[in-house]
Amino acid sequence: MTIELRSDNAASVSPSILEAMAAANSGSALAYGGDEVTARLEEHVREVFEHPTARVFPVLSGTAANALSLSALTPPWGAVVCHESAHILTSEGGATSLLSAGAVMTGVAGEGYKVAAPALRTHLDGVRWGDPHHSQPSVLSLTSPSDHGTVYSAAEISELAAIARERGLRVHLDGARFANAVVATGSAPADLTWRAGVDVLSLGATKNGALSAEAIVCFTDGPADELVYRTKRSGHVTSKMRYQSAQLIAYLTDDLWLRNARNANERMGELAAGLESLGIELVARPAVNMVFVRLDPLLADALEAAGVLFYRLDGLARFVTSWQTSADDIATALAAVRSALG
Amino acid sequence: MTIELRSDNAASVSPSILEAMAAANSGSALAYGGDEVTARLEEHVREVFEHPTARVFPVLSGTAANALSLSALTPPWGAVVCHESAHILTSEGGATSLLSAGAVMTGVAGEGYKVAAPALRTHLDGVRWGDPHHSQPSVLSLTSPSDHGTVYSAAEISELAAIARERGLRVHLDGARFANAVVATGSAPADLTWRAGVDVLSLGATKNGALSAEAIVCFTDGPADELVYRTKRSGHVTSKMRYQSAQLIAYLTDDLWLRNARNANERMGELAAGLESLGIELVARPAVNMVFVRLDPLLADALEAAGVLFYRLDGLARFVTSWQTSADDIATALAAVRSALG
Amino acid sequence: MTIELRSDNAASVSPSILEAMAAANSGSALAYGGDEVTARLEEHVREVFEHPTARVFPVLSGTAANALSLSALTPPWGAVVCHESAHILTSEGGATSLLSAGAVMTGVAGEGYKVAAPALRTHLDGVRWGDPHHSQPSVLSLTSPSDHGTVYSAAEISELAAIARERGLRVHLDGARFANAVVATGSAPADLTWRAGVDVLSLGATKNGALSAEAIVCFTDGPADELVYRTKRSGHVTSKMRYQSAQLIAYLTDDLWLRNARNANERMGELAAGLESLGIELVARPAVNMVFVRLDPLLADALEAAGVLFYRLDGLARFVTSWQTSADDIATALAAVRSALG
Amino acid sequence: MTIELRSDNAASVSPSILEAMAAANSGSALAYGGDEVTARLEEHVREVFEHPTARVFPVLSGTAANALSLSALTPPWGAVVCHESAHILTSEGGATSLLSAGAVMTGVAGEGYKVAAPALRTHLDGVRWGDPHHSQPSVLSLTSPSDHGTVYSAAEISELAAIARERGLRVHLDGARFANAVVATGSAPADLTWRAGVDVLSLGATKNGALSAEAIVCFTDGPADELVYRTKRSGHVTSKMRYQSAQLIAYLTDDLWLRNARNANERMGELAAGLESLGIELVARPAVNMVFVRLDPLLADALEAAGVLFYRLDGLARFVTSWQTSADDIATALAAVRSALG
Repeated sequence: MTIELRSDNAASVSPSILEAMAAANSGSALAYGGDEVTARLEEHVREVFEHPTARVFPVLSGTAANALSLSALTPPWGAVVCHESAHILTSEGGATSLLSAGAVMTGVAGEGYKVAAPALRTHLDGVRWGDPHHSQPSVLSLTSPSDHGTVYSAAEISELAAIARERGLRVHLDGARFANAVVATGSAPADLTWRAGVDVLSLGATKNGALSAEAIVCFTDGPADELVYRTKRSGHVTSKMRYQSAQLIAYLTDDLWLRNARNANERMGELAAGLESLGIELVARPAVNMVFVRLDPLLADALEAAGVLFYRLDGLARFVTSWQTSADDIATALAAVRSALG
Repeated sequence: MTIELRSDNAASVSPSILEAMAAANSGSALAYGGDEVTARLEEHVREVFEHPTARVFPVLSGTAANALSLSALTPPWGAVVCHESAHILTSEGGATSLLSAGAVMTGVAGEGYKVAAPALRTHLDGVRWGDPHHSQPSVLSLTSPSDHGTVYSAAEISELAAIARERGLRVHLDGARFANAVVATGSAPADLTWRAGVDVLSLGATKNGALSAEAIVCFTDGPADELVYRTKRSGHVTSKMRYQSAQLIAYLTDDLWLRNARNANERMGELAAGLESLGIELVARPAVNMVFVRLDPLLADALEAAGVLFYRLDGLARFVTSWQTSADDIATALAAVRSALG
Repeated sequence: MTIELRSDNAASVSPSILEAMAAANSGSALAYGGDEVTARLEEHVREVFEHPTARVFPVLSGTAANALSLSALTPPWGAVVCHESAHILTSEGGATSLLSAGAVMTGVAGEGYKVAAPALRTHLDGVRWGDPHHSQPSVLSLTSPSDHGTVYSAAEISELAAIARERGLRVHLDGARFANAVVATGSAPADLTWRAGVDVLSLGATKNGALSAEAIVCFTDGPADELVYRTKRSGHVTSKMRYQSAQLIAYLTDDLWLRNARNANERMGELAAGLESLGIELVARPAVNMVFVRLDPLLADALEAAGVLFYRLDGLARFVTSWQTSADDIATALAAVRSALG
Repeated sequence: MTIELRSDNAASVSPSILEAMAAANSGSALAYGGDEVTARLEEHVREVFEHPTARVFPVLSGTAANALSLSALTPPWGAVVCHESAHILTSEGGATSLLSAGAVMTGVAGEGYKVAAPALRTHLDGVRWGDPHHSQPSVLSLTSPSDHGTVYSAAEISELAAIARERGLRVHLDGARFANAVVATGSAPADLTWRAGVDVLSLGATKNGALSAEAIVCFTDGPADELVYRTKRSGHVTSKMRYQSAQLIAYLTDDLWLRNARNANERMGELAAGLESLGIELVARPAVNMVFVRLDPLLADALEAAGVLFYRLDGLARFVTSWQTSADDIATALAAVRSALG
């Protein structure tokens, strides 16, 4: 028997999402997003985000959502400013450079894997604006939650977005785990996005119960008008889009997305508290569903032998909970730690 | 009540494919293709294609399959030679130029929407090889079935591929409806592909009963080695790949793919025979599941009013059957034609 | 002794242009176009083109001028519409696709190697506007003179540009031999460009007496604002730009460009008349400095043996005169023909 | 009267180079590098670099030389590893990302603006090789002299290249001021390049007396074969290439390149010694023709008022000498400093 704590990507699909797909599976429907399920999705998103003209592009991976969003926000000679640990910079194989025709990424520093306002300001002050020898900062991209489980508050996003917009940058939010951030901050989706100055959101669902469904949500029309073409010519318009849209509707219906995320965050809370009480050092108290801890290698080996799955990254152990993790899973994992320590 | 004859893209998903996805939905699995379902898929494909080292990359749209395949077969300064009506040239929004960093498409002529051997030869003879002023033909891409429902025989593919390979070109087959071609020709999948000289196949499934699942099948290692990176950086590696792989396994199991295609082809045979017997002029006798006919506009209007759905393209009416079309559907459609003519 | 009639590219540099470069060679000057010679160039161009805000980007090859111009006029999902024989389509190795991130070229037909208004209209009427499956026509690019020596009148450019602009396309003129067109038409530079609806001109000088100097001339600001960055990041901003600007100023001063072109056109007139009077069939009466003729292969061999240099292209012989061709050269060449015929 | 110490880019052209261009200006010659001057250039380069099969591509800017070289050395999913201050990373507007179809740059640390061997090793050890989420290091690019005037010894290049090659990277040397490095190190050109493991060199000439002439020198055939196409389709094959080749031949003839560089280096030595003796703090003792110093702002203003031209960058003053700087210039500049201090 194994306890899966490697990645929320490893979880399976929420039953009600699979059911929604099955329910969409009747009759015929126009391909490439011309169906009425996709039309309804846009209404749902507008309601959830309290934004009457938001536009939605379902895509199939977080990398697609991010790289396409950014390609519609930056000119080819632009620079995407992000935290030096940002997923778009470290883990997407150069996707944004490809899809934007050569825009570059610039990492800036900040505690907690979050862009620090003074670092952003200093960076932007040092740019030679208008000098074509130098890539021109064009987008601020924030990742929340970060790949280390930290979260920006609505106020932090607002402050950073304001600094960026002052210098003409547009703002992107990589929300691969956006639901976990909504739950963690208790803020309205609108407050974490457009009301804080975000132009385009990569709204993840796959890590939180969907099958293969992410959505690009545009709060301004310019990027959306481009994405009509950019999604197609990068192969990201599926012919049977209704099945993706059905997933996303089910995801947003009856707060499934928030219930799933809440489970993941709460289970992580239990895990982190349990580990701490057993004397394991956390790199940081987890805000969402992810924790990094320092584990003795022997302990790590023993845990794995006991069937607790996790990742070893850069000398640390990473544990991630998901919508599917149960309180029993956590209890079992903690028992395994206890027994290994004994 | 409507009869869907617009596109096989409009059909829904084969029940056994949905069931396979549900069956895959248990426990956790490594993301990004590291799961055992994806490993099994490769075995299935190797068996079906009688090729011990074929490699498979599940993607989510035909455009992705084609543009990625071609990007791994051509240098950026290359030219992809195809029929002047090829889907990759007319209907993918420039995807191949984007993903290949600027390769171009060259359309050559040929009856029946198929590249003619003499036209191909003439074209290649006229190239200034090695002169960088001129894009260098690097890939021959054949579409079978074509977007007009015609099909290359194994012998035709062999002949064209041989001409291409003589000049150093590699060979790609756009098989968005490959199953329909297998059924129509009665040839083994291997005979229509690698035994005929094809390096890479875009194997479609979505139009023939899958949800969102196409596969790039590489019969040589060079392109496959590149696709490891090219799929990721274009956003085409899904984290929950097991659900795509499960679709494709179900598709290839117990000949589902051929049974689905056979139904579509046979229903089209009935439709075409029926239309002809009613005096409607076919542009060509259909080889697979698609026919173009000349319809009087008034007749077309009457048909649509009777609930028969089809496309009007360039002054013609296009009818497409799918795995889901029933003999009753065809009978009903023909009755509507008869009544409209009456 | 040889008579050079292969290409105007093979000619050497006008003495006054070399002198201008030597004259610029004193003292120091800011690099990358920050010098005062480059500033003066813009004034010259504005005067010659009677346009108070035209902006100029010196570059070093015609391919650079064209591909950069087009990359600033089209979105990546656009299609550049041009004559099917256009140099940008046939002879620039896919440069525009590279620099525009994947825009495609669409050739339309027309007599005399010129886009025909009805063909353009038909093409644009057939486009599925707004449908991302299909590249969206975004620029009309005219080549005048064409690579076959034909020329558009100001009225023709106006008519075509008007058709294009109606559908939202912008207009580019590939004027690699623009001076020859000005001389041939007798029209003002402004009448052949912005007054006729041209947004951006590739103004060639290299084939007509300059060393390595072409200029992108923008009559609207949008493309110019982009070219500040696009020229740099493609490596087309030279540090010692003053030497290019000096060439271009000398070129435009005292009508040197028109005097050079007039010589080339007139010598070609003499050659064509002479060939015709000797019974050689011209493919078309030359408008500028280029003629294609049908030559018996034995005659062609004899001519070459006599030192007359020309190109054999697609079964024809091409003769090109330049600013440097003298009346004696033509007389000698004609004598060689006469003697070979004898 | 002014003393130009802003940039060697601001210098004019060596008389013998202008003369060589004038000498090339007779008769006609095949365009696009098909001329015999360009053929001779390759022989010169092979001799100077003691390499019998080196291949040469004249281009017109350092950015073109670097970005084209790198695009022929890296796959699109690669990462170019360089010092975090490298010109290719900070000052070329993303050119390499554009021309390589999205390769990225990774800056590593090191004293003296030079990649440190341990930092390189650590970086390469940390890479997840073969994992497409992560850009794969493919080229090591060294800049010598750096933009801060420091120089790699032949031994240092060898050591770094060996580390790189062990992991499959190829090696590029950005030699925008290569002649200054040859003079400073006293090493043979071959020892600083191919004998040390360099595959491709960007050989600058423009900053050291040429008009607009850089050369890509390939010591291996793979990149050269690609550059035939890559130079053309980026607009970097000039039609009258003989004038560039003539410059480069003159540059390499009778050690002009080394004499020019020696003058620049020696004048800088005088300047630096003089400044130091006047109590000005040098950031580092200059190895070549460039020094950064800390200047009191009032002193800086006074110097400028006295006609001494230099740049203020990041709180420092940068002085650069050139082939054209005379001992009198240095004496005058130092006198101005002395008088401003007094």
